[in-house]
Amino acid sequence: MQPIAGGGMLTRAAGELAEAAIRGEVSGASRVMIDAVTPQLDAGATAIKRIVGEPVRVEAQLFADGHDVIAGALRYRPAGSGAPWHEVPMTNVADDTFAATFTPDTLGRWEYQVRGGIDQFGSWQHAFPRRAGEDAALNLRIGAELVQDAASRASGSDSEALHAFAARLAAGGDDASVAAASEDLTRLMRATRDTSLDTQGAVLPMVVNRELARTGSWYEVFPRSLGAPGEHGTLRDVIDDLDRIKGMGFDVVYLPPIHPIGDTARKGANNAVHAVAGDPGVPYAIGSAAGGHTALHPQLGTMDDFDALIAAARERDMDVALDLAFQASPDHPWIAEHPEWFKWRPDGTIQHAENPPKQYQDVVPFDFESPHWPQLWDGLTDTIEFWADRGVRAFRVDNPHTKPFGFWEYAIGRVKAKHPDTVFLSEAFARPNIQDNLGKAGFDQTYTYFPWKTTPSELREVGEHYAADGRLEYMTPSHWPTTHDILPENLQGAGRDTFALRATLASTMSPTWGNYGPAFEEMLNTPAAKGSIEFLDSEKYQLRHWARSGNDLSPVLARLNEARAASPALRSAATPRFLDVRDDGRLVSFLRSTPDGSDHAIVVANTDPSSTAAGMVHVPLDELGIARDEPFDVVDLLDGSTYRWQGADNYVELAPGREFGPAHVLQVRRING
Amino acid sequence: MQPIAGGGMLTRAAGELAEAAIRGEVSGASRVMIDAVTPQLDAGATAIKRIVGEPVRVEAQLFADGHDVIAGALRYRPAGSGAPWHEVPMTNVADDTFAATFTPDTLGRWEYQVRGGIDQFGSWQHAFPRRAGEDAALNLRIGAELVQDAASRASGSDSEALHAFAARLAAGGDDASVAAASEDLTRLMRATRDTSLDTQGAVLPMVVNRELARTGSWYEVFPRSLGAPGEHGTLRDVIDDLDRIKGMGFDVVYLPPIHPIGDTARKGANNAVHAVAGDPGVPYAIGSAAGGHTALHPQLGTMDDFDALIAAARERDMDVALDLAFQASPDHPWIAEHPEWFKWRPDGTIQHAENPPKQYQDVVPFDFESPHWPQLWDGLTDTIEFWADRGVRAFRVDNPHTKPFGFWEYAIGRVKAKHPDTVFLSEAFARPNIQDNLGKAGFDQTYTYFPWKTTPSELREVGEHYAADGRLEYMTPSHWPTTHDILPENLQGAGRDTFALRATLASTMSPTWGNYGPAFEEMLNTPAAKGSIEFLDSEKYQLRHWARSGNDLSPVLARLNEARAASPALRSAATPRFLDVRDDGRLVSFLRSTPDGSDHAIVVANTDPSSTAAGMVHVPLDELGIARDEPFDVVDLLDGSTYRWQGADNYVELAPGREFGPAHVLQVRRING
Repeated sequence: MQPIAGGGMLTRAAGELAEAAIRGEVSGASRVMIDAVTPQLDAGATAIKRIVGEPVRVEAQLFADGHDVIAGALRYRPAGSGAPWHEVPMTNVADDTFAATFTPDTLGRWEYQVRGGIDQFGSWQHAFPRRAGEDAALNLRIGAELVQDAASRASGSDSEALHAFAARLAAGGDDASVAAASEDLTRLMRATRDTSLDTQGAVLPMVVNRELARTGSWYEVFPRSLGAPGEHGTLRDVIDDLDRIKGMGFDVVYLPPIHPIGDTARKGANNAVHAVAGDPGVPYAIGSAAGGHTALHPQLGTMDDFDALIAAARERDMDVALDLAFQASPDHPWIAEHPEWFKWRPDGTIQHAENPPKQYQDVVPFDFESPHWPQLWDGLTDTIEFWADRGVRAFRVDNPHTKPFGFWEYAIGRVKAKHPDTVFLSEAFARPNIQDNLGKAGFDQTYTYFPWKTTPSELREVGEHYAADGRLEYMTPSHWPTTHDILPENLQGAGRDTFALRATLASTMSPTWGNYGPAFEEMLNTPAAKGSIEFLDSEKYQLRHWARSGNDLSPVLARLNEARAASPALRSAATPRFLDVRDDGRLVSFLRSTPDGSDHAIVVANTDPSSTAAGMVHVPLDELGIARDEPFDVVDLLDGSTYRWQGADNYVELAPGREFGPAHVLQVRRING
Repeated sequence: MQPIAGGGMLTRAAGELAEAAIRGEVSGASRVMIDAVTPQLDAGATAIKRIVGEPVRVEAQLFADGHDVIAGALRYRPAGSGAPWHEVPMTNVADDTFAATFTPDTLGRWEYQVRGGIDQFGSWQHAFPRRAGEDAALNLRIGAELVQDAASRASGSDSEALHAFAARLAAGGDDASVAAASEDLTRLMRATRDTSLDTQGAVLPMVVNRELARTGSWYEVFPRSLGAPGEHGTLRDVIDDLDRIKGMGFDVVYLPPIHPIGDTARKGANNAVHAVAGDPGVPYAIGSAAGGHTALHPQLGTMDDFDALIAAARERDMDVALDLAFQASPDHPWIAEHPEWFKWRPDGTIQHAENPPKQYQDVVPFDFESPHWPQLWDGLTDTIEFWADRGVRAFRVDNPHTKPFGFWEYAIGRVKAKHPDTVFLSEAFARPNIQDNLGKAGFDQTYTYFPWKTTPSELREVGEHYAADGRLEYMTPSHWPTTHDILPENLQGAGRDTFALRATLASTMSPTWGNYGPAFEEMLNTPAAKGSIEFLDSEKYQLRHWARSGNDLSPVLARLNEARAASPALRSAATPRFLDVRDDGRLVSFLRSTPDGSDHAIVVANTDPSSTAAGMVHVPLDELGIARDEPFDVVDLLDGSTYRWQGADNYVELAPGREFGPAHVLQVRRING
């Protein structure tokens, strides 16, 4: 039954009210108000996202006119299942605040709802002492009637027990007062409460994901760069590399587009507008006579090879993530098959794609304003489903902010409806409105501006940004030190300490992070040009072969992923709590904790590892439940050293040249814990 | 056209999408997102309230995928009028923020909506310099086509001008570039923009009130206490008192219930449970053989007298406010006529009303859980409409929090639909959830816990509470130093300084306030009993006659209302900005300002006027637009004295025994302003 408040009664004429009530649409007799239900996003227009098997605590304000006792319940079920609601009573935790917890145990869309009503018997019990001074016998008779009514709603032994209680109340005397307050009666009356006038809150949506949607270590690799020197690598080469990648602790192997590359307007090395003979082209210029978004680049291998890759990854408990780049080379088969999906200029050409200041002369965009958008949406979504059907359950999405938000809501919704274990990472380097609304449209994760954030205050700003304004309810930030598009200034010409620093920060500030493969391990640090953030001789534009130095960063990366494995706090929601540090301004420190406080990790990093930084880190002992006079150990999960700390302020010193870089990743260990 | 994002596409199956598009329900081609529209409450479920003739500034976040230029518009109209929308363009004031202002010019419900779309021509203009390096002729041809399309949408001279511009663009050359950037073309293209793919935001509700809903001075008087000694006063006595009340600057004369009083269970003096012969009973025990909520107490006069009172008030530009107390004496005619509106106990009686710990033995409540609630709601609303039809346009509502929120939404909505100039004041001394939701249900104003707030920090807390969390969007706090139910401890035994202090704070912290009539002027300060906040010999329970001392507080009250009349800041929205004061902790100070900054008032009060308090008040010069080295005057609107201040920190001293009490109400005056 819907209550009337907030339901637009203001515009309803007098006579219509009774008619709506007769039709059962509204009930003015539903007196309980349900307000401020958390979690919820945009009044239920946006789904919250959670991880399967993790408890969801729901709170609401329940109140009514007058002074009656209120009962609340939380209902939940998989959405669209037609299954009956599960229901748990809510506890009145403070004032009008009621709370309850449930744990979704399957992937996919769920829904939950708060229900509340007057607890007539509870109200009677509450007023019992007050009424005793008035007409005790009458009051017991009223109570007996309430219990009698409940008995008629109950069945079996409950009904019998309630009948007996009703008789005791009606009989009056001291025994009636004992009965009135009995726990058995209270329990039975709660279980059989008349809920016909209960108010039903809004049904709120939730997407239940697997853990990878929040927590993971991604490793990007261009398959074509894995071949022998001068040769085009293949998917089989990726299979051969899996053990090495897994050995460093990565969960996901992310491949840039693996589709046929167009010839027309193909680019050359270092983003040259015109290719020369032998240039392989940019993998993002998707589509040629060999096929489009559902085809494989002929030099990478066959669908059998692809299936083998998926199987090999699965054997190792790894995911293969594909890149969704929704654009077309001028040679894409769709240009001829679906000319209505493109915007044609008066001269019969299509304007090439742009993401200013970037110009993509080798690709054209789809026309999302086409009247044929429903077919375009389905066509694109079909390609995602094609790969999902072949076992791909993670997608990195290229420039999603150049396609409509509604499209993503549709596409991700459709794919997740069939494959609810699919994870979507948004590559939207864009302002918060854009990043946020892509998350609300369905993306689980987003790239961040981390690559450009280097000072303690900048790191704090980016870390706190994603924990604010409810963002973690719908997306997790994924920090990457570099990508194939980004060699930030702080890594240009930088050495091992700085590379290790950036990997440490990226992998510990958030539960999910990513590493741009061999280029990062080998600490490539030369930009394409002064002032550019492109890599020199980027593998985007040419065949590369990774001559391994044997002195690369892989031991650091492996140790970081081991630290993440050892510390549940580092794998928990991205809520770094930045700590005050007294130093010369180069140290940054933050605390990561599990929601239940069972694990805490403190990261301290020297953001300028050109020389030693030292200072006092202020630990919020209260939040760790540690007394001021209680010594505790912090164990560096990177190099294994243990420090005994006591009190809130503790000394840290980080010199250049340390084996695992200029940072501590400290797990807090109580000495008697 | 509705965009798809946030519209629940996640649950829509693939085939349904195209069907919905064909039906015109959704358009994926509507790419603009509309987010964070302000003002708005509860995603549009609750109406904001504004004052007629005052501008409403609406802001929204408008953004889209990609890099196109966006155009926004604000639409507004009286609700339910079927009238066409008025529309004003929104200005892009920062990043994605668009803003526009409109001024509702009639009372009643309005609605407003943000609309946004891609500005194709603006996007073309924006990209013009970039495209010049590509294919200039082709680019001009595209621009010419856009202008040509606009020409076909336009008519008359606009169409002709657009045709001419299209020809200039198509001709190319330098003149085409001049034409492309011309202001005339820009203006014409904006005016004829193709809006067919625009996104329509939610239609948001607004209640437009007259100024009294926010700003006023209320004066409470019991008519029966205005008679000659020992005689029952009448409505004619109220008429005779109007000039005196108006002379003190009050706008509203508020009368506690003026209906017949029941005999059964009548209470006696000082809340005695049993009356003795001659006791007049409590005006809130409404209903006798003489009638119920639409009847007049026979000793107060006739309906003609009532009409004369309304007319006399109107002549003086005053309002008469009635008291809505929805409860019944056991003698109320409805008990027999509508037994289904009450909850009967097994012994054939009705439990008397309560508002614990208060017991109202002389009245019974309505049963809002009755299946006949639609008829009950209409019956009660009929009584409000009865008095509104006779000219009453302000109601003080007794204990609204003991009746369902939905009822108030319905009742206030129905009455305001017919009489949109009606103002409702809620007497809900209740926790924020309750007060707030009564405001959201329709009440314009609420009583506050001001009577109990005495220290600077308590006053700051109560003042800031109502300015926070969007409360001013839907209700205004009304501070009363006392009511007929409340003689707070701070006034028990208090003298003139304290009474003046409390009136000064109440009348300056918020644009609307109230004074409990002669009892306050005469500074009645004796409680009914130790520990009680009831007045001794309260006129609620017995006939009182106000022997006037000639040395009452009326000059102070008059001066306060004069100050309010002289300072628009004091009549503006209740956003007191509390100022830092360096003193021994007894001074409180706050700044009130008009929204446009044209008037500022600084109140400084000594909250413990038993001795002199002195300190330095910190004035936020930046907000006043005053330079640090610029002297300015502050004029005390109570006693007329002028102080010349300079810089942020200024000395104030407030001694006991000042003519208008221990406070300054200072209007800020620029010396060269």
